[in-house]
Amino acid sequence: MFGDRDFQSEKNKAIMKIRAKVLDAARCWLNQNGYIEVHGPTIIPAVGDWPGSFEVKYFDKKAYLTQGLQPYARTFVASFGKVYTIAPTFRVEKARTRRHLTEYWRIEVAQKCDLDTIIKIQEELVAHICHSLSKDARVELKCLRRQVKDLCKVKKPFPRLTYDEVIDILQKDGFNVSWGQKLDWELENNLSLRFDQPFFITEFPVGVETFFFKSHPNRPELTLSVDLLAPEGYGEMGSGGQMIDEKKVLLKKMAEEKIEQGDQKWYINFMQYRTFPQSGFMIGLERLIQWICKLIHIKEASAFPRLLDSIYP
Amino acid sequence: MFGDRDFQSEKNKAIMKIRAKVLDAARCWLNQNGYIEVHGPTIIPAVGDWPGSFEVKYFDKKAYLTQGLQPYARTFVASFGKVYTIAPTFRVEKARTRRHLTEYWRIEVAQKCDLDTIIKIQEELVAHICHSLSKDARVELKCLRRQVKDLCKVKKPFPRLTYDEVIDILQKDGFNVSWGQKLDWELENNLSLRFDQPFFITEFPVGVETFFFKSHPNRPELTLSVDLLAPEGYGEMGSGGQMIDEKKVLLKKMAEEKIEQGDQKWYINFMQYRTFPQSGFMIGLERLIQWICKLIHIKEASAFPRLLDSIYP
Repeated sequence: MFGDRDFQSEKNKAIMKIRAKVLDAARCWLNQNGYIEVHGPTIIPAVGDWPGSFEVKYFDKKAYLTQGLQPYARTFVASFGKVYTIAPTFRVEKARTRRHLTEYWRIEVAQKCDLDTIIKIQEELVAHICHSLSKDARVELKCLRRQVKDLCKVKKPFPRLTYDEVIDILQKDGFNVSWGQKLDWELENNLSLRFDQPFFITEFPVGVETFFFKSHPNRPELTLSVDLLAPEGYGEMGSGGQMIDEKKVLLKKMAEEKIEQGDQKWYINFMQYRTFPQSGFMIGLERLIQWICKLIHIKEASAFPRLLDSIYP
Repeated sequence: MFGDRDFQSEKNKAIMKIRAKVLDAARCWLNQNGYIEVHGPTIIPAVGDWPGSFEVKYFDKKAYLTQGLQPYARTFVASFGKVYTIAPTFRVEKARTRRHLTEYWRIEVAQKCDLDTIIKIQEELVAHICHSLSKDARVELKCLRRQVKDLCKVKKPFPRLTYDEVIDILQKDGFNVSWGQKLDWELENNLSLRFDQPFFITEFPVGVETFFFKSHPNRPELTLSVDLLAPEGYGEMGSGGQMIDEKKVLLKKMAEEKIEQGDQKWYINFMQYRTFPQSGFMIGLERLIQWICKLIHIKEASAFPRLLDSIYP
């Protein structure tokens, strides 16, 4: 036992086995569908003012820990058309919640395609994972009191709500929420309780999502973005969208968001490839496991979770 | 093109495809043989005086980047008997060589077994990877001027030399090498040129390998350790051994090597599990690819290599 964790308990063994089976199912689907596995760097150079990166002492330089395959995804997509990576990711998270780890694994996909296509890819992948587990992890699911039928009933297409619709639903329900704000945990939780399978929220306003995402062609106040949410109150477990694919648009957006171009030269250089539509998404492995295994705290989804207060063992 | 890299070249695409195929072959073999995929932490707490760890600013604490699944492997092995991890690894490497990255991926296996068994596992895994590529990566191998027959002829059992034998061979060949010293690059390279398939060196002296390894039962000056070397002059691509499995032996060895027990409490705690033999190995993915793809510099095996002088892009 370390801290409050008993590694030898049947419950913890079942969670760790499901973790392995989720990864195997994801890779099977991705490999069979022609995605090439790639690795971006974990240690990345200056990220300017982007919040949330852990700092690494890299010889006499400052460096940071990755938050995802962006912007490296673009070179891989230029080479192979469709790629994926499954790798650790890091985020300085100062809140004590049941939903955040500072170190987590992500399943990330990037592809030459538009937003609608990447949403369909994401639902195919998640449905495949759920259906695989419903066949190959029955013993572990039973141990965790997750009904096999809950995973069988995950059906494509997943319900899709726009951000506009979400605000409307929540306002009608009496929540004090205004258009343009980030959906906080209470709102996400409430929304997620209305569903019994994963669902999407699309087209978040500019400012709510990262500056990589392309603006909506007809409504420039929106981005071509998508979040994947788990049902039953679990909330967000993935995010993605269609990337900006023109250098001048990126430069303009960086100027608007006051991001120093000097520090971002390495990113801007990635835009040299001829313009092509590129979309992608990232699913937090531990979030997906938290929902599938019905875990109260996300730390149970990781054998050695890293939290604000805990780095031991 | 970034620096000297053209991502769109046929050569670089072939290397990246082989990288994906090596991983797929490794996982197939491990999954089919009952190994459970696990993840240790990337950010680890104080490592005392262990050299070679990058420092991370973890809120108001100092933390470090992992150098492998040790000592976490032990808890996973206690739960599952045999496990593997494929994940990024970090080492401060101040030398400018054609063989070192500061960030690399490792294929790591840990198991309830003795040294001889883990050597056999390692040769089965490496042979499987080579034979898989000889069938599934013919186009890429041709592009890289690697003969398919070079991979077909990788046969179990791999040649095994003891460290004693290696010193003897090198001394007879006129090298100025004495028993007890680490095999430097020149020696490793020379030895490796004598082979046309991967081979092992076993039983390194105490002090040449990490303190985790058990002493030889009959010759306490040796450890139950094993390095995997590539042929054709490429040299070391993996290392492993049988771990110390008794708490009192570990404490004694830590005292001998002047490792502070205070900082290592988290490691010592792992020894609480009832004694069982545990062995493991780690193969450097980029080293394996460097040999398979006949690359002059290891940086070609990684899309965004991290080196002493280079962290961009």
